[in-house]
Amino acid sequence: MSPEGRLEVIALDGIGEVRRGDDLAGLLCIALGQTYGVLPLGPNDVLVVTQKVVSKAEGAVVDLRTVTPRPEAVEWGRRWDRDPRAIEVVLREARRIVRMANGVIITQTPQGFVCANGGVDLSNVGPESGDIATLLPTDPDASAAAIRSRILEAFGTDVAVIVSDSFGRPWRWGIVDVAIGVAGLAPLDDLRGSPDADGRVMHSTVRAVADEIASAAELAIGKTAGRPAAIVRGSGARRGDGSIRDVLIPAEADLFR
Amino acid sequence: MSPEGRLEVIALDGIGEVRRGDDLAGLLCIALGQTYGVLPLGPNDVLVVTQKVVSKAEGAVVDLRTVTPRPEAVEWGRRWDRDPRAIEVVLREARRIVRMANGVIITQTPQGFVCANGGVDLSNVGPESGDIATLLPTDPDASAAAIRSRILEAFGTDVAVIVSDSFGRPWRWGIVDVAIGVAGLAPLDDLRGSPDADGRVMHSTVRAVADEIASAAELAIGKTAGRPAAIVRGSGARRGDGSIRDVLIPAEADLFR
Repeated sequence: MSPEGRLEVIALDGIGEVRRGDDLAGLLCIALGQTYGVLPLGPNDVLVVTQKVVSKAEGAVVDLRTVTPRPEAVEWGRRWDRDPRAIEVVLREARRIVRMANGVIITQTPQGFVCANGGVDLSNVGPESGDIATLLPTDPDASAAAIRSRILEAFGTDVAVIVSDSFGRPWRWGIVDVAIGVAGLAPLDDLRGSPDADGRVMHSTVRAVADEIASAAELAIGKTAGRPAAIVRGSGARRGDGSIRDVLIPAEADLFR
Repeated sequence: MSPEGRLEVIALDGIGEVRRGDDLAGLLCIALGQTYGVLPLGPNDVLVVTQKVVSKAEGAVVDLRTVTPRPEAVEWGRRWDRDPRAIEVVLREARRIVRMANGVIITQTPQGFVCANGGVDLSNVGPESGDIATLLPTDPDASAAAIRSRILEAFGTDVAVIVSDSFGRPWRWGIVDVAIGVAGLAPLDDLRGSPDADGRVMHSTVRAVADEIASAAELAIGKTAGRPAAIVRGSGARRGDGSIRDVLIPAEADLFR
């Protein structure tokens, strides 16, 4: 919660297309310098960076022209009008297939996320877009940490960083942005045991603040505007050495295997 | 997406405790008048109101002192340290039990939502807190519409309204606020068929904007500050006559029954 009850999200201007090997942290620092009203940064600011530019800069991409789909991928692609090479990549990346039905493939990724297509994405990846798939960053916490330390170096301010991606949800149509990597903040705000507004102790309230911050950022960033990052100001997120692994429900507590 | 890439959330000041029969829309209008920087309202503002005050004002509450738990509720309450009368209410309200394991009861509500405890909530409900449970509003779209029309009357501006609640998610710990009722906006922003930043047609991007707006509002509202509503400015949500039913995945497409 913000003490003042105010939240502000400012999408960063001036980041063009990001390519493999680009210095993303450097581009973000330039954008921070160019975006009206963002500077000076404060220690409670959170920088949200969308997965796609992180994956591209880190080279977490696959050239589909090098991929030979297995028969299952060919059959699925034909049946559901999908690129069989992309299906092949989804299946290769999967630690576990959670559901494969109705044209939807939901997998658990090596990082532990459960999401559609294992985070493999085709759209919006530059001039070779039809032939290049982005994967999730190998270690999104590390991606966030690297950006955090570069911003500290450049601006002298230790902002928290979230790497975000768009995930679907069971039971509800549509995607929302969630955190897939964090640095410098606790992704969960555990209110259990603290009194609520009536002085009653709250039993089961753990706020997924990093996910809510990612969603708030997405509203300012949008999907088509070529703005891959935003500063979120006033979220009240608790600073700390959190990991996105704190958010993942382990197998023994998972009711939707 | 916000055209300017800026989002602002302002939690409303000065709403005290809300009781059964209170004129919630009137209280919200007063709070709008009292909150610094909120007025004038604009047609692209969205007012987010949390479920609990809506339920209380509408009398969607149960006095647990009148509830006799069935043996199953008594056993579950004993086993998981929960109030068996509240469990009884959850089971009575359920259209369908989705999961009942590990101390967690996930049901589908009469409104069609799938959530923990069917939206029945014990905490934070005034001096009788231990004995009063709030239910979801019977028709949250109608709750939102009623508030919308009162604000139009009072301020001459037709803002969109979202009623929000905190839901858990499979695979990820923590709760995030989502929309459970809408008025005056399309809860989903369907980008399918529109070109992305590279001119590539996007196949599967439906943004759940109402849910993201609810999450953004929660960050400013917090859980303990006694602020049950916020104005969200710059979300870029599309105006329209949407219903929260647009968001609900029907049984035949539900992979997690």
